[in-house]
Amino acid sequence: MEKYSKYKAFKGNVIYSKSKDVLIIKENSYILVTDGVVKEICNQLPYGFPKDNIIDFGNKLIIPGFCDMHVHAPQFLQRGIGMDRELLDWLNTYTYPNEAKFNNKDHARRVYTLFVDELLRQGTLHVNCFPSIHYEASEILFDILEQRGLFAFTGKLNMDQNSPDYYIEDTEQSIIDTERFVKKHHKSGNVKAAIVPRFTITCSEKLLAGLGSLSERYEVPVHSHMCEAVNEMKVVKELFPKYKNGAEIFYKNNLLGQRPTIMAHCIFMDDDVLELMKNPNCMAVHCPDATANINAGGIMPVKKLLKMGINLAIGSDIGSGASLSIARGIASTIEHSKIRNMFDPQWEAVNLTEAFYMATRSGGRYFKNVGAFEEGYCFNALVIDDSNMYSEDITPLERLERFCYVGDDRNICMRYIMGKEVEI
Amino acid sequence: MEKYSKYKAFKGNVIYSKSKDVLIIKENSYILVTDGVVKEICNQLPYGFPKDNIIDFGNKLIIPGFCDMHVHAPQFLQRGIGMDRELLDWLNTYTYPNEAKFNNKDHARRVYTLFVDELLRQGTLHVNCFPSIHYEASEILFDILEQRGLFAFTGKLNMDQNSPDYYIEDTEQSIIDTERFVKKHHKSGNVKAAIVPRFTITCSEKLLAGLGSLSERYEVPVHSHMCEAVNEMKVVKELFPKYKNGAEIFYKNNLLGQRPTIMAHCIFMDDDVLELMKNPNCMAVHCPDATANINAGGIMPVKKLLKMGINLAIGSDIGSGASLSIARGIASTIEHSKIRNMFDPQWEAVNLTEAFYMATRSGGRYFKNVGAFEEGYCFNALVIDDSNMYSEDITPLERLERFCYVGDDRNICMRYIMGKEVEI
Repeated sequence: MEKYSKYKAFKGNVIYSKSKDVLIIKENSYILVTDGVVKEICNQLPYGFPKDNIIDFGNKLIIPGFCDMHVHAPQFLQRGIGMDRELLDWLNTYTYPNEAKFNNKDHARRVYTLFVDELLRQGTLHVNCFPSIHYEASEILFDILEQRGLFAFTGKLNMDQNSPDYYIEDTEQSIIDTERFVKKHHKSGNVKAAIVPRFTITCSEKLLAGLGSLSERYEVPVHSHMCEAVNEMKVVKELFPKYKNGAEIFYKNNLLGQRPTIMAHCIFMDDDVLELMKNPNCMAVHCPDATANINAGGIMPVKKLLKMGINLAIGSDIGSGASLSIARGIASTIEHSKIRNMFDPQWEAVNLTEAFYMATRSGGRYFKNVGAFEEGYCFNALVIDDSNMYSEDITPLERLERFCYVGDDRNICMRYIMGKEVEI
Repeated sequence: MEKYSKYKAFKGNVIYSKSKDVLIIKENSYILVTDGVVKEICNQLPYGFPKDNIIDFGNKLIIPGFCDMHVHAPQFLQRGIGMDRELLDWLNTYTYPNEAKFNNKDHARRVYTLFVDELLRQGTLHVNCFPSIHYEASEILFDILEQRGLFAFTGKLNMDQNSPDYYIEDTEQSIIDTERFVKKHHKSGNVKAAIVPRFTITCSEKLLAGLGSLSERYEVPVHSHMCEAVNEMKVVKELFPKYKNGAEIFYKNNLLGQRPTIMAHCIFMDDDVLELMKNPNCMAVHCPDATANINAGGIMPVKKLLKMGINLAIGSDIGSGASLSIARGIASTIEHSKIRNMFDPQWEAVNLTEAFYMATRSGGRYFKNVGAFEEGYCFNALVIDDSNMYSEDITPLERLERFCYVGDDRNICMRYIMGKEVEI
């Protein structure tokens, strides 16, 4: 029928999250897609559906593309190195010298190209990037994300204090450059500008106030780190004595909750901070591997925050996280919550349904409709071929679980953004 | 010169453990090998060394093959599934029904072939296998390990109580079958027989005594589980009221320390048990992912045991562990020890040098000389090509670290056992 001439039907075992507690699993079903957007999922094709428009993945799984909601793009080449170091030592030895190299545009273009390629290879179709302080490099990252079709937030990093001489900004210039960036990109397409102060330690109050006012004026989201480590929080308290904590500093400078706000780590939050983070505009990003590697000191009480209704996502946090695989992040989220529970039994472990939700639908909430396959959601999807894992007599849900625990990018045989195949 | 005509020289960046605290790193060096055994490592080749006998791996890393010292071969097809279940639920739902299938020889041959292929693909050249209860399947596993050239211990599993009707043995028959197995294989080549009681809960005292006497008579090592979970230890105490704990049951039945004894988990060991495990014949196997998945309840205090001089190794513990990669096991050992340290700061985190030692030289101690490249050690080696990880300006040690945290089997470009290339 004419009606379906512009439709495509993707057939397979479809899995997506309805909510944190409910996974929808539709075996041998067709996802009907038009203009890159899901119309419905059905067991049988409508009468007269054109055969040429069927893309049949047989017994394979079809799941939403992953969301990596906290990742340092310029740290891509340093991933998996220096994992035995303390945070400050690691920053000074590896991270700051490495990020400083992004004043070279050729270097930025080369590394960011590799980085975005690897994101797509790992099935991350939606990403929230931490850049370097350099305006030009930040533009390059923006362009590459856009060219490759990802849904993304990215910006220009800000830091004007407590940073090495070779990697620090003048306060005024930092605000000027940031305004230039957000002015240019705040009304962009699928890649959008964000305000990205590194963390309160490296940002003066004047800088934070300026950034907060840009976020308000241009209506752009905020992305930073918060409540990451006991020592960091102590330093914050010393640097900003008139505030109760880092969250209040952000909040009172229009950088927490006034616009969509994505805060990495959020490991140590007292009741005041939890109250601020309950705002539907806010999201806390759990970065399990990073937390276990460099940021050691605590593990986010994920179950507690889920129960409180705080929006949660998963981040790879390259380079203190080592792998860009969010599938692996799902398994680590579960594993680490189990270890946490051994020592602090008041909060149960996280299960697969919850971790998968964090990595897909929940993580995707500030993009267009992504991370699920309900009507009106973008068909941003991965096709999982797990035939190399000898999956016999097991359910689609068990196959999803196995993919997260044992699989890798080789099992992602197709990636779609807005219904279009992504080339890698 | 004639002297070197039967030598080979493997060139690369060589890394191996001297001890738990010392890694030997020799950049751009030659490992001279004759009859499959290392003679020396040198910066320059001896005068007249035949050029045709040089295998030049350029800038690649050469490291010892890994040791997986606790892995359930018949659980290979169930890896990564049911990870959210409790231990007993997981055993009854997945593990026992799955292991019971190995009464079918064709199934055993097919699965064990896949299993051993995957071990080699992941760089595990030395393995300590847990089989099923079936005599024929155990012989099949032995044969495949031998055909593929691995260094291995394996046996026939024993369980005569507290097991499902469809997967339990008669005590006498279990001992008879085990004797048949060890008699045939106790003087074998690189694959050797072991006595493998599942754990004390599933073994009557009569069975354990019989197995202990076989271990003595045929001088075969022992492989089992111990001190794995609080509940398990409570049940052990109820089942064997005259013994202080599971370790004493093994010890008094000639199954702990009289011969090489490899005990998985050893998470909860009181002073009595630690004293028994200090015996140089004993080794405790840390299975980080398995512990975090199914066996949740505690994490081995690895640093404490290392400091006490207890022999330690790493195990994948498929299927409660999900991945056969011991490189990943190294990273998990470190990460999980950091999480443990957050909640129980008395024991420091494990570092890369220690975890790599556990996975290579320490794990290999009951085979011939394996796991290092000193004179007289077997050239059982992996060549690591990390060029896809853009390793610029970083040291061989950092490259090893990155391989463990981010790499996978694709980075293992060659595997050698006794100087011979392994085909995968």
